[in-house]
Amino acid sequence: MTQKLSGIAASNGVAIAAAYMLVDPDLTFEKRNITDADAEKKRLHEALDAAIAELQQIKTVAEKNLGADEAEVFEAHITILEDPEMIGQIEGKIDSDKVNAEEALKEVTDSFITIFEGMTDNTYMQERAADVRDVTKRVMSHLLGKNLPNPALIDSEVIIVAHDLTPSDTAQLNRKYVKGFITDLGGRTSHSAIMSRTLEIPAVVGTETATTMIKQGDQVIVDGLDGVGIVSPTASDVDAYTKKGDDFTKQKAEWDKLKDEPSVSKDGKTFTIAANIGTPDDVAAVNDDGGEAVGLFRSEFLYMDSSELPDEETQFQAYKKAAEDMHGKQVVVRTMDIGGDKHLDYLPLPEEMNPFLGYRAIRISLAQPDLFRPQLRALIRASAFGNIAIMFPMIGTVDEFKRARAIYDEERQKLINDGVKVADHIDVGMMMEVPAAVLIADKLAKYADFFSIGTNDLIQYSFAADRGNERVSYLYQPYNPSLLRLIKRVIDTAHAEGKWAGMCGEMAGDQVAVPLLMGMGLDEFSMSASSMLQTRSLMKRLDTDSTAQLVEKALDAETNEEVADLVKDYMSRLN
Amino acid sequence: MTQKLSGIAASNGVAIAAAYMLVDPDLTFEKRNITDADAEKKRLHEALDAAIAELQQIKTVAEKNLGADEAEVFEAHITILEDPEMIGQIEGKIDSDKVNAEEALKEVTDSFITIFEGMTDNTYMQERAADVRDVTKRVMSHLLGKNLPNPALIDSEVIIVAHDLTPSDTAQLNRKYVKGFITDLGGRTSHSAIMSRTLEIPAVVGTETATTMIKQGDQVIVDGLDGVGIVSPTASDVDAYTKKGDDFTKQKAEWDKLKDEPSVSKDGKTFTIAANIGTPDDVAAVNDDGGEAVGLFRSEFLYMDSSELPDEETQFQAYKKAAEDMHGKQVVVRTMDIGGDKHLDYLPLPEEMNPFLGYRAIRISLAQPDLFRPQLRALIRASAFGNIAIMFPMIGTVDEFKRARAIYDEERQKLINDGVKVADHIDVGMMMEVPAAVLIADKLAKYADFFSIGTNDLIQYSFAADRGNERVSYLYQPYNPSLLRLIKRVIDTAHAEGKWAGMCGEMAGDQVAVPLLMGMGLDEFSMSASSMLQTRSLMKRLDTDSTAQLVEKALDAETNEEVADLVKDYMSRLN
Repeated sequence: MTQKLSGIAASNGVAIAAAYMLVDPDLTFEKRNITDADAEKKRLHEALDAAIAELQQIKTVAEKNLGADEAEVFEAHITILEDPEMIGQIEGKIDSDKVNAEEALKEVTDSFITIFEGMTDNTYMQERAADVRDVTKRVMSHLLGKNLPNPALIDSEVIIVAHDLTPSDTAQLNRKYVKGFITDLGGRTSHSAIMSRTLEIPAVVGTETATTMIKQGDQVIVDGLDGVGIVSPTASDVDAYTKKGDDFTKQKAEWDKLKDEPSVSKDGKTFTIAANIGTPDDVAAVNDDGGEAVGLFRSEFLYMDSSELPDEETQFQAYKKAAEDMHGKQVVVRTMDIGGDKHLDYLPLPEEMNPFLGYRAIRISLAQPDLFRPQLRALIRASAFGNIAIMFPMIGTVDEFKRARAIYDEERQKLINDGVKVADHIDVGMMMEVPAAVLIADKLAKYADFFSIGTNDLIQYSFAADRGNERVSYLYQPYNPSLLRLIKRVIDTAHAEGKWAGMCGEMAGDQVAVPLLMGMGLDEFSMSASSMLQTRSLMKRLDTDSTAQLVEKALDAETNEEVADLVKDYMSRLN
Repeated sequence: MTQKLSGIAASNGVAIAAAYMLVDPDLTFEKRNITDADAEKKRLHEALDAAIAELQQIKTVAEKNLGADEAEVFEAHITILEDPEMIGQIEGKIDSDKVNAEEALKEVTDSFITIFEGMTDNTYMQERAADVRDVTKRVMSHLLGKNLPNPALIDSEVIIVAHDLTPSDTAQLNRKYVKGFITDLGGRTSHSAIMSRTLEIPAVVGTETATTMIKQGDQVIVDGLDGVGIVSPTASDVDAYTKKGDDFTKQKAEWDKLKDEPSVSKDGKTFTIAANIGTPDDVAAVNDDGGEAVGLFRSEFLYMDSSELPDEETQFQAYKKAAEDMHGKQVVVRTMDIGGDKHLDYLPLPEEMNPFLGYRAIRISLAQPDLFRPQLRALIRASAFGNIAIMFPMIGTVDEFKRARAIYDEERQKLINDGVKVADHIDVGMMMEVPAAVLIADKLAKYADFFSIGTNDLIQYSFAADRGNERVSYLYQPYNPSLLRLIKRVIDTAHAEGKWAGMCGEMAGDQVAVPLLMGMGLDEFSMSASSMLQTRSLMKRLDTDSTAQLVEKALDAETNEEVADLVKDYMSRLN
């Protein structure tokens, strides 16, 4: 029977394919006392053999589809399953304690994990703990006669159905076959959503019920334009959505024609449309999609993709490559924003009650200049190879900005004294994402060369609502006049000091927000590369006088919904 | 040798006494294989007997000093240690596994704790798990020949030295003998600090090193006026601090003369000085200290002191008592602010990554009206017996306030329809603690009867810094112009609609902040009862014109320190 799900439209487009359930089966079991230890050990070995065979198959496929690096982890898993010490202990437990294989497996592997995890200063052993956890799950699934999902084995077109997608899930996906995502959890800024936009595949997130309503192999339509999922569609559904997908593809082709055009409003005012990127490799897509700058290079990806602190030279190469590949267009690099929800194995941070309100970003950089200085040096050196700008994340006070800038000035002078070639001028600015900083933006504008509004964090702090927490997701209100007033304040204070203001949060590519941001005079709009051309197309239809009038009304409204209605009404009168 | 510690001045006054180390000893042990099981069981029984004897002694003292209720827990602990089932299992483990008593004790009690804690819907069993944990610690200390601190046994004057103080620590303290606190952790708003002000004893918190630098029985001076601790003071230190303490006592006697005077500035402008309370019993101290109102009745204490949801009648009695005992002076009751760092055993809330940005306060009340409506009914009924006002915590949007007020209006109308006597008018206002609410305060002022600024939360959200996190405590900046601008906005928008604005955070009683708040025209200052008379004394020395000029300068400053200096300079020119 055809069923409909609704969720959040996370990435544009329409996809139709068979469901692949990326959902772990229930692996709980009862501890049992057994009498026939030999029979139990035989069960254990059958499960071990099955797990090894499965891993070998995955490894082969992964090598072919994902590359040798991605496949290496499976070899490590096989090695663990062949370890005589561990297997011996599990057998011993079955013999001495007369317990079932599941219990013996769990007790022994738990003790290994505890020991490995106890070596908190040893990254290698920490990773081994994760590996033991993974292989235990696999052997357990065979003992219990259940199937683990093996995304690396996917070899036909699928829609991925998951509770939520983690970075390690997506690392195993063969992008060629993944046509769409549909998940229970997540919002527009969740990992699943951002990943789907990077891959440019349709996605619907936050459906709450996708994993319970959809079964493995069901035909599924994902409508990422309107946030709808259809399970077991009728023939006419398939026709209608195929057409909708085709229309969107045609629409995209129209947008693609704007690739080499400037970003101008109907009345001829020029804006900058830029992209948010994570690695220098992302620059190709920025150029392909007609980006005029990189408004946010999230430098922490350099740190997160590495097993040790990336040294100055490694960072320098990455920033240099991005700068060169952008051919003189500006690349705004955000200094590392570690902490909060982003952690590094090799940089242990304290356990915090509220990590989003904790030791993160510039707070770490100022307290640990041994991390900060090499990054600044790498950036200043890279400035000789293109148009690099630097911005500091999570600045909350004038004092923090001045301290960060002073360290930058010192490193720049040292490099010049050492005869290193550096750009004559580097824009040094800051993220506007802490409410206190917005309130004192007039003072900060005297010291910073630019502001870039980080709406995801600014919204979460302004409304005191964790953006990852479903229970308070109703407080993610990008159009609330309270937030618009903060944004306007950032833009106005920047302009009063002759500085520029950008936005690099999700909101910059939000088609309801764009008319408001144009009306406020935002200079730079930085977004997912895939949203840039659509936004350029929208800009051409809008003029800055009437959007400024729209802003006046929006700032005087009371609620998020009122503003959304004002924009909708304004847009409907455009055509 | 005399040593000096510096920390945060958390509660005024000077105390000199012997140190009492409220610090758990290291109870880690090695698992050992034993051969003589009988000898090991003898060790176990000696430890059990010693623990029971100790508990009996504590119970006797606690009954006498703290009352039968507080002593009951120790009887429960004795019962556990006499439980033949548990003792039998520990002995069995020693016999069968040939392990030392420490290991056997830990394994058996761990399994009990796991079982009890697994019954998540049973509050009684949850408490038993905590009891087993406590008695295990005690028996273990005897097995290891170490001494647990037993604060209930204190029978001479002491300074409590602790890493941090928890509510359960302070419950066991005999207030008669506790002359001061000094702790490693905590800030002005930590539990230790608030408790010390409630008890009116000097306290220094956040010294980082108190528990390592001080030994049991050391003579210690706690200077809660300047945030200093002195270990093993010289005779001249003792003289100097005794004098400082006496001077403060005299100063307090001067302040006490203002008890029945109004709170007026030098130029005759009248303010309201009010108190923050947790229970109706606190009203006595408010009247004693000349309070003109209760500016914050934290209603969640009713919920936290109970083992089940307090029903409408229980709440009604509490609010009625507070209203009656205040004899017509206003009592502002904040509806329950559960969640964040406050949890109830009988109201399980989801585990959250960032509880301060999560499901708490009005967010719970709006989502679970079955909790909210009885509280509103109790409050509306109590309004007939005095001057009750109601305020909603954590309002972030106009919509939230309107929804909360609509539920209030419904319940009020229902009570009137049922013929219940209610006040003709009840002020219904809101806390100003979410930055987004401040930004839209002009709209909120149309619907709310008053605003009360909650500075602890407003600061933590504005600066995106958890107030309990030492690593970001430098961002607790109450005088930062960014925060002052938010506060001024709240006051101005309230006045523009003819409403009043108060403050019920720690800042309202801060002697540096008071001149600024007077200059901004704050109407009501609500603080710890013990700070009220000092504040009234300060107000008499200040005039509203010159403080308004001071505010102008402060709002145009760049940093917290600059503003603190401005106020210091202003105050120095007063005399």
